[in-house]
Amino acid sequence: MDAYKVRERIRSGQHKKTTSGLANDNVQANLVVLPKEYAFDFLLYAMRNKTPIPIIEVLEDGKFKSRYAKDSDIRTDIPFYNIYKNGELVDTVEDVKEFWQDDFVSFLIGCSFTFEDALIKANIPLKHIEENKNVAMFKTNIPTERAGVFHGNMVVSMRPIKKEFVDQAVEITSQFKDMHGGPVHIGDPSAIGITDIRTPDYGEAIELSEDEVPVFWGCGVTPQNAILQAKPPIMISHKPGYMFITDINNEAFKDSK
Amino acid sequence: MDAYKVRERIRSGQHKKTTSGLANDNVQANLVVLPKEYAFDFLLYAMRNKTPIPIIEVLEDGKFKSRYAKDSDIRTDIPFYNIYKNGELVDTVEDVKEFWQDDFVSFLIGCSFTFEDALIKANIPLKHIEENKNVAMFKTNIPTERAGVFHGNMVVSMRPIKKEFVDQAVEITSQFKDMHGGPVHIGDPSAIGITDIRTPDYGEAIELSEDEVPVFWGCGVTPQNAILQAKPPIMISHKPGYMFITDINNEAFKDSK
Repeated sequence: MDAYKVRERIRSGQHKKTTSGLANDNVQANLVVLPKEYAFDFLLYAMRNKTPIPIIEVLEDGKFKSRYAKDSDIRTDIPFYNIYKNGELVDTVEDVKEFWQDDFVSFLIGCSFTFEDALIKANIPLKHIEENKNVAMFKTNIPTERAGVFHGNMVVSMRPIKKEFVDQAVEITSQFKDMHGGPVHIGDPSAIGITDIRTPDYGEAIELSEDEVPVFWGCGVTPQNAILQAKPPIMISHKPGYMFITDINNEAFKDSK
Repeated sequence: MDAYKVRERIRSGQHKKTTSGLANDNVQANLVVLPKEYAFDFLLYAMRNKTPIPIIEVLEDGKFKSRYAKDSDIRTDIPFYNIYKNGELVDTVEDVKEFWQDDFVSFLIGCSFTFEDALIKANIPLKHIEENKNVAMFKTNIPTERAGVFHGNMVVSMRPIKKEFVDQAVEITSQFKDMHGGPVHIGDPSAIGITDIRTPDYGEAIELSEDEVPVFWGCGVTPQNAILQAKPPIMISHKPGYMFITDINNEAFKDSK
């Protein structure tokens, strides 16, 4: 199904599941919405932490239509949104029109679904997709570089990769420099501060088999983590795993400059 | 002379000329200082117009020391600063400490001196350097992409290049993708809205010989042009040609991602 149709289904409430595997060739994006007062610090935070926070598009205050998604409305075209007030999750909703403020600035941020598509095409098995699950995401002890009020540790996504495919997975994902790029860590979870690999902080748990290695990539949920520490009066984000689907082909980010 | 020493000479008022050709291996930067209220729009404007406005560093409000220049102070380490109020040039000074506000955000922007160094090393003659002049800069009719209050046309730097060297000059400067990159135009000045090639809008006039072609590159003075149209209450910039000298080697920007 093409991206336009998928957005339409989401908008009308017909699709309420994770967007993983939907409109497979298309770039899916994380969303962060903040009052303009926080927009400079956040944009700078993203620039300084490109691996977990690759900016695809910024919608200035007053705008809610993505230039990369025909007839889109970022206030309605994501299955679920999280509403945070003063750093606390206060609501999860299907439509954020009633929360919208004229001074809201929106950031669309790259997502690892883009390189997953390339991994699948290279016949590297991705277990969470085979098991129809949301990817497992973890808070780490890897610090991000502060900008203004934003700071905190990186969030990573983890995929169990069979030993014989690890090198190839590194090579393929490294080609997506502006879409998280290669892994930030391979192997021992405790080396990056993850104490229990069976209980992810976001997404769903996934089992590691004997012949699999946990491979970790920078994750677009990182900014949610930083924003919660900065405690803005309001912040809206997608629910992790439930993304905004653009009309851009994933290949556009391969070996991008 | 190394960059640290040059900054010291500038700070103490011993060097009052253009910085062209100084600390040749080092990246020189354009400066834009704005109240934080304008910082988001400006950072986004730069991101959307990377060719003329390649951001090297952003100094958040409260900061005036570049991480790329040891013991530096951007308020004193440039020979001359232009002070603009409500879009009008009101003063040109050697030190901006007395104008400094706590909410000032500073942007260091790439400069074509970086690729000039590479051109010189490839034995491509650069006439303005041979004649000890500031480079000629022109307003064009090439539109930039708007962001918030910032919009306007691109400013370009022009260098007369001997016909036989044009291809090579294109090739070399194209390697500096994050430092203006290749030319935005070659040849007929009127095609980009320049009516008189003998009267530049900034810098110094330079004569074109029969065997030379005018070659135009995106210029870091572009934001000054956009800011003057937005008329912020105050904006501080370097005087064109009088740059901030960093400790970064020019080569660091060659073929940068």
